[in-house]
Amino acid sequence: VTGKGWRRGVFLLAPGHFTGIFQPTDAFSPRHLGPLPKDVQEMCKTIGVKDLSALMEETIPASVRREQELDLPDGSLGESGSLALLKEMLSKNIVAKNFIGMGYHGSHIPGPILRNLLENPGWYTAYTPYQAEISQGRLESLVNFQTLVCELTGMEVANASLLDEGTAAAEAMAMIARAVNSKTKNQFFISDAVHPQTIDCIKTRARYFGMELVIGDHSKMDFASMDKLFGALVQYPDTKGRFDDYSSMAQALHKNGAYLTVAADPLSLVVAKPPSEFGADVVVGSMQRFGVPMWFGGPSAAYLATSKKQVRRMPGRIIGESLDRLGNPAYRLTLQTREQHIRLDKATSNVCTAQVLLANIAAMYSVYHRKEGLQKIAKKVHGLAQLFASEAGKAGMAVGSGAFFDTVTIDAGKSAKTVVEALQAKQLNLRAFDDGTVSASFDETHLEADVHALVTALKEAGVGGSSPTAGMTVNGQIDGAFARSGPFLEQKIFNSISSETELMRYLMTLQKKDLALDVSMISLGSCTMKLNSVSSLAPCSWPEVGNMHPFAPESQTAGYREMLTSLEKYLISCTGFDACSLQPTSGASGEYAGLLVIKKYLEAKGEGHRDVCIIPRSAHGTNPASAAMCGMEIKWIEDSRGMDLEEFKALCAEYKDRLACLMVTYPSTRAFFEDNIQEICATVHENGGQVYMDGANMNAQLGLTSPGIIGADVCHLNLHKTFSIPHGGGGPGLGPICARKHLAPHLPGHCVVNPSTAGSDPAGAVSAAPWGQAGIACIPWMFCTMLGKQGVLDSGRYSILNANYMKSRLEPHFDIAPTNKNNRCAHEFIMDFSEIRKRSGIVEEDIAKRLQDYGFHAPTMSWPVPHSLMIEPTESEDKAELDRFCDAMISIRKEIAKIESGEWPADDNPLKNAPHTQQEVCASEWKHCYSREEAAFPAAWLLKRGKYWPTVARVDNSLGDRKLKLRLEA
Amino acid sequence: VTGKGWRRGVFLLAPGHFTGIFQPTDAFSPRHLGPLPKDVQEMCKTIGVKDLSALMEETIPASVRREQELDLPDGSLGESGSLALLKEMLSKNIVAKNFIGMGYHGSHIPGPILRNLLENPGWYTAYTPYQAEISQGRLESLVNFQTLVCELTGMEVANASLLDEGTAAAEAMAMIARAVNSKTKNQFFISDAVHPQTIDCIKTRARYFGMELVIGDHSKMDFASMDKLFGALVQYPDTKGRFDDYSSMAQALHKNGAYLTVAADPLSLVVAKPPSEFGADVVVGSMQRFGVPMWFGGPSAAYLATSKKQVRRMPGRIIGESLDRLGNPAYRLTLQTREQHIRLDKATSNVCTAQVLLANIAAMYSVYHRKEGLQKIAKKVHGLAQLFASEAGKAGMAVGSGAFFDTVTIDAGKSAKTVVEALQAKQLNLRAFDDGTVSASFDETHLEADVHALVTALKEAGVGGSSPTAGMTVNGQIDGAFARSGPFLEQKIFNSISSETELMRYLMTLQKKDLALDVSMISLGSCTMKLNSVSSLAPCSWPEVGNMHPFAPESQTAGYREMLTSLEKYLISCTGFDACSLQPTSGASGEYAGLLVIKKYLEAKGEGHRDVCIIPRSAHGTNPASAAMCGMEIKWIEDSRGMDLEEFKALCAEYKDRLACLMVTYPSTRAFFEDNIQEICATVHENGGQVYMDGANMNAQLGLTSPGIIGADVCHLNLHKTFSIPHGGGGPGLGPICARKHLAPHLPGHCVVNPSTAGSDPAGAVSAAPWGQAGIACIPWMFCTMLGKQGVLDSGRYSILNANYMKSRLEPHFDIAPTNKNNRCAHEFIMDFSEIRKRSGIVEEDIAKRLQDYGFHAPTMSWPVPHSLMIEPTESEDKAELDRFCDAMISIRKEIAKIESGEWPADDNPLKNAPHTQQEVCASEWKHCYSREEAAFPAAWLLKRGKYWPTVARVDNSLGDRKLKLRLEA
Repeated sequence: VTGKGWRRGVFLLAPGHFTGIFQPTDAFSPRHLGPLPKDVQEMCKTIGVKDLSALMEETIPASVRREQELDLPDGSLGESGSLALLKEMLSKNIVAKNFIGMGYHGSHIPGPILRNLLENPGWYTAYTPYQAEISQGRLESLVNFQTLVCELTGMEVANASLLDEGTAAAEAMAMIARAVNSKTKNQFFISDAVHPQTIDCIKTRARYFGMELVIGDHSKMDFASMDKLFGALVQYPDTKGRFDDYSSMAQALHKNGAYLTVAADPLSLVVAKPPSEFGADVVVGSMQRFGVPMWFGGPSAAYLATSKKQVRRMPGRIIGESLDRLGNPAYRLTLQTREQHIRLDKATSNVCTAQVLLANIAAMYSVYHRKEGLQKIAKKVHGLAQLFASEAGKAGMAVGSGAFFDTVTIDAGKSAKTVVEALQAKQLNLRAFDDGTVSASFDETHLEADVHALVTALKEAGVGGSSPTAGMTVNGQIDGAFARSGPFLEQKIFNSISSETELMRYLMTLQKKDLALDVSMISLGSCTMKLNSVSSLAPCSWPEVGNMHPFAPESQTAGYREMLTSLEKYLISCTGFDACSLQPTSGASGEYAGLLVIKKYLEAKGEGHRDVCIIPRSAHGTNPASAAMCGMEIKWIEDSRGMDLEEFKALCAEYKDRLACLMVTYPSTRAFFEDNIQEICATVHENGGQVYMDGANMNAQLGLTSPGIIGADVCHLNLHKTFSIPHGGGGPGLGPICARKHLAPHLPGHCVVNPSTAGSDPAGAVSAAPWGQAGIACIPWMFCTMLGKQGVLDSGRYSILNANYMKSRLEPHFDIAPTNKNNRCAHEFIMDFSEIRKRSGIVEEDIAKRLQDYGFHAPTMSWPVPHSLMIEPTESEDKAELDRFCDAMISIRKEIAKIESGEWPADDNPLKNAPHTQQEVCASEWKHCYSREEAAFPAAWLLKRGKYWPTVARVDNSLGDRKLKLRLEA
Repeated sequence: VTGKGWRRGVFLLAPGHFTGIFQPTDAFSPRHLGPLPKDVQEMCKTIGVKDLSALMEETIPASVRREQELDLPDGSLGESGSLALLKEMLSKNIVAKNFIGMGYHGSHIPGPILRNLLENPGWYTAYTPYQAEISQGRLESLVNFQTLVCELTGMEVANASLLDEGTAAAEAMAMIARAVNSKTKNQFFISDAVHPQTIDCIKTRARYFGMELVIGDHSKMDFASMDKLFGALVQYPDTKGRFDDYSSMAQALHKNGAYLTVAADPLSLVVAKPPSEFGADVVVGSMQRFGVPMWFGGPSAAYLATSKKQVRRMPGRIIGESLDRLGNPAYRLTLQTREQHIRLDKATSNVCTAQVLLANIAAMYSVYHRKEGLQKIAKKVHGLAQLFASEAGKAGMAVGSGAFFDTVTIDAGKSAKTVVEALQAKQLNLRAFDDGTVSASFDETHLEADVHALVTALKEAGVGGSSPTAGMTVNGQIDGAFARSGPFLEQKIFNSISSETELMRYLMTLQKKDLALDVSMISLGSCTMKLNSVSSLAPCSWPEVGNMHPFAPESQTAGYREMLTSLEKYLISCTGFDACSLQPTSGASGEYAGLLVIKKYLEAKGEGHRDVCIIPRSAHGTNPASAAMCGMEIKWIEDSRGMDLEEFKALCAEYKDRLACLMVTYPSTRAFFEDNIQEICATVHENGGQVYMDGANMNAQLGLTSPGIIGADVCHLNLHKTFSIPHGGGGPGLGPICARKHLAPHLPGHCVVNPSTAGSDPAGAVSAAPWGQAGIACIPWMFCTMLGKQGVLDSGRYSILNANYMKSRLEPHFDIAPTNKNNRCAHEFIMDFSEIRKRSGIVEEDIAKRLQDYGFHAPTMSWPVPHSLMIEPTESEDKAELDRFCDAMISIRKEIAKIESGEWPADDNPLKNAPHTQQEVCASEWKHCYSREEAAFPAAWLLKRGKYWPTVARVDNSLGDRKLKLRLEA
């Protein structure tokens, strides 16, 4: 198996370098891969291997090595050629005028936000803000977001965003179930006037939580008598555009100890009475129309707001204010103990990311428009809807009654579908209902002329004409019964910045507070912070990518479908599987989807009773959370040096009648390729289970092995890790799943637009949009197309090279957690500071914060090994940057030696006081026993390259959790 | 004249705010204008006027007020609507495959350079790097550029770029004329194988310098006998693509005391013998194909390189290394005494800008490709040309003989023009020569397949076929006689950065060293650093804008022509004139063009002898330089409080037989609207002269008055000031001229593609491209379209408001130079520090550098009043930013008081030591009598917003001029 074929495959071409004089001058491989060929030689020497090939052989077990080359393009198009190909493909999209609504609306992304946030690596290459001291910029913006959501909904607290409105509603259901915490209450009511895709997501979620859904007309329900209800969900305004007063419903629910969740359009809330005023306990919705493109479904930021007393049950990230070491205010991720990596199988949510980039766009959109501007937009949108209702009425169409915001229904008789199709042919997209009505939703991009064109087209399609009504008032004023009153959004930040100049400066001011990939490497273990190339990101700004409604008719979306199908094929080849679903929007969403598919498969086989999930201790916290959400019981297995095969066999045998699956990460988070993975997988199959592979460490497998080869059945891929979608400062991600043929019939479907990959017996929808977040799927497509088979393989090889090189450089100075029998790590490795801690009192957090003084982001802290840092350099860092990081670590080791020797006291040294701020270092008073230079300029490069300064000193975490401050005061 | 009409005109609408609920939600006016309506009220109160209208009446003389509203769009399209309109217009362009060559070539702009430099306000909103301490980033990049040019050409020194190849060659001619400095030598030889547009530019320039041009076949000239020659120009490779050995020509010239200038394609120099090796004294060329779009002609960076001994005669900016106060190396603009603002009417060049943004792109392109990558590109390009020659030969076409690089000629018989037209119909653009040959030039964007397609198309057009030759070697190797040998480009910066990640970091590192508009206001008097909006800049990145060859056939350029014609109309309306030429590429180029037009007009009238140009003392230094270049004699007139009418009349009368023109700036650089401007202009006319208005201060006139109203005949407009093209860190600019009807017949023409605005009796070409720098003409078009008539008017009004507000705030603390009789300044004002200097020894430079510690760029220093700063806030700054700047100035005044009182010594205080660097403030040793906080954090906002740190201390200017260090060592 280890023969020459593999070696040939791995060494198909000189690494990342094309031959022949006519090769493209913009080949991507040499741009994506950090080390130059001459560096590779030197690095191999340091590692102590002959060459890259020898390193691969010492790293990857012979049994799992991939022989077959990747079925990807050859990479010869270069960057511009790949862009041209994609442009040609996507030009098959038809960008129509969209009046479909259903939670997706046209919106103008303001120029300065487009360029200086969405297209700015300072914002989009940032990591999740775990290191608060070097993330104050986006944390400030996220507090703006939370404040905005609270002000719009009238609720007390909001999180920093969720994935989409559909899953946010499902999260709300799970959250209030936990709040009600009653064994007798297991029913959840959903109004049938909620958006269908939201109902779809909740159906999926409810099933394995063992909840019963009641779906119906809320106005006809007797809530007072429904004592099994723990909660209900309504839409405001509803899916047909109508406002309804849910006060009495809320009262009835509350009387019964049940909670009301409201899904609300945030733009309507600018002018309409907030849900807090009619008794909402939780409010969810999508912030998409606040400046975020529709992107054929995503990404955009959903929100969830509730009352203070529920805050500890809220899913998702929450930002709060605390104080730093010097007593200055500082933002941080708060209440992290709520999250799945702490709660594990006790979790009721596996959400572990947000949509930070999009939440920040929505927040900045509101900062820029100010309260006054938001009001103008809402008024315009409502005015357009009024005008449409008026003109439709005048043309004799039967307009739906009741108060509305942006959506108006008219009766099209039996021909609703025909009418909609007739208008689609004119590139006017409406929505048809089964009851013979059609609806039109308006947004800020529409013009008066669009309204008239629409009415004309409807007339031409034969709608109306019989009994014209008088025109109605068109003034942008919402129906009095539903109009907002009283002050809101009074915070200075939503009432001060109006000029593009000042918005640009605000964006730049915040950006410069944060350390992102534009500053230095971010070596977060298991997070793969690789290059996010401009060419791969450019298509996200194209109008044919941004302005596509997820429910646009198939005839208009040929370009998108072709690209998505092509990407699916790429991913299938990389995983060695047979089928792919792009619907999951994050890694955790992918885990959940994958387990659902397994459950569905087992059920189809008549083995639906299987409910045991084996998970190794080193797994990501999302694994047990996802399994718990699928109603599985988790059995843990120790794997600090890899799973013991005998122990594993015994465990499987013990549960062989109940075994549903194993969730395994490969290489594991212990950072080496385990030898026995195939035997492990075979054992699961022998005992009737399926193998779910967590794709977190897929970067180490690229072209070198595959989930298929190791014997897994389904896996998710973190496209934001392995396939170079940027982390966005904490989202968006993209977590598609790939699976073997036998699981394909169960891939997720969608009730509005069924994706081509949906199975014949699908697990339910896991996202609100058919293809999840199609708008950023261009990025991995470009990544694969530009790199080609050799470049993708090289990504895997170089990531392993870089990790082993750093390990070799650091090994003389630090304890490294055990790796494989050849002492080779995979694409990451773990430094263990247990001994340092014992001898000096210095803990991993001190080292992490001290790295900030050197201008670096800390690696992953304290996981999966206690007292550790896990370093993953990725293939995109060059040797000079790897050396700079190693030099910093070695320098820190010398500082620790001074503490060990007593030269510096244990409680006053640059590590315990790290990070140091300008304010402290530039102050007249300096009371430390080490110098200012030792504090802030411990390495020569800091003056030369420019010093990155953390903007606050070390943040007090427990204080922030004790005294919650989650929004700006008015 | 001052009646209600004017007031109504000025108050057509509420400032920048549309009414009605259906107005666009992305209206541009409120984004462009800083102050909100409520701020305007407050500011008027501070100024002491009732309202904006009253301020205008007190500021602008009644006699010149404009009544007629601007003939511009109404601004109702908003930003997205304007972009959509422009997109529609430009979609009429046909982007063909281009093989025309002639100095314009397709090129891939690398993604990270596109996004992080060209599209990054941190780079493009920077000003010219006069303040070296806060400009080290782009200065470093420009030194890379100079080094690159030296290495490619083999010359010792290079400047930091010139405007285009054509004018660079003209500059070279003027420079060597000065070097030779012989009264008997006034002939300049130009090879007829130089690009025709270059010859055209030189013809124009030579005429009024009184030089005689000899144009012919250099291989047939007897240079040894031509003793009137002071110099010669050849092209390498020449316009037909041939390499020639100019060694013996150089020897002959040198023997006669004449100099050889070589215009060379820099990409060819990567593989070909550098001109230094065959005796070149000056080398010029265009760096466009180093990553810069063709943009229908510009902008791109030209270069000029020569020997060390010529450095003090070199035109244009030069960057050199010096030391700062602390002894650290620091870059700065060097040898500024060469420049026109010092040399005035002794100048032989009026160049006072560069193409910094494009020079930086070219430099970064070379950094990113490294020497190795540049060699690959050159080899590929040559290989494509070889392949074409080979395939064409095989198809029986007669291929031109001799060594070549990228361009191959073939004989098309009499049908050359027909052949070229046939291929244009297939979107393949070739060049036709009068001698019946056609040529094809290749570039890095071409593919092998393009070569074959081209040969096929030629065959189909009936070329070749008679006597096929054998194929030739296709290996990318240049003919041995012309191949480069020996080491070059060995500098580390051209051999280290290969990954996109590291290039991004390098770009960001440099960007963060510089203070641009993204950090704080840049209140440079007479420079108008206003908002450069994203929407106006976005089109510059569109392919239909970037990928258009300036000599593409008319049938392919309809979109560009429509946009340019539309822009011409906008500018005509703003100036109140009748005609416009977009050809001049900078303000100085506009001055020169305008004066040429006047000369030509006078000649046509039979008054070509008129040669006196009156210039007020407060004029920009370019004015006398431009006049001198047109062979005029300058007569100065004092105008410190405005020109005295009687004195002026007397001067005109004295020269009434020789008076050619007055060059006047309005409002003058003394910063107020002079009352007698119409009388001044009338006097000129009465004495047979014409009035040239310098448009530098046009921002104060927008919609409020006009050059037409004041009585001028022609003016240039600094589109990079008034019409919001960004300054790019020191270029590109755009300096079109507008003129009255009688001058229209003399507007510049072009020998290759005559622009529609060219007159019937045109002054010669002033730029290499027909429309100058058409690629950035989208910006002013968007500016006018988005703002509309009211928004453009408001720009003028708000710029005056902002200046008067700042003046009012600062008046209690500082001496302000005299303004008009109502004590109202125009859009800028002058602070006079003469008294402060006497009392404290603090000079304007100390204040300017101290402002850096507060995070601000200094205003214009020491001009036009000695010991002054001239402040121009522009309309784009909001009240908060104006206040912040005023607060900084007032705080500095308090610091000066401490020096006056003796609290701080005159030689050790925060002003004399300004700016303070991190290195100094964070050092253990602090020897100053003021505190670290007083040094670096003198204002509260510096901690809150984030401190901008100058990266070097005050630079030693005289040292830098004495010890020239203008490039990186190998």
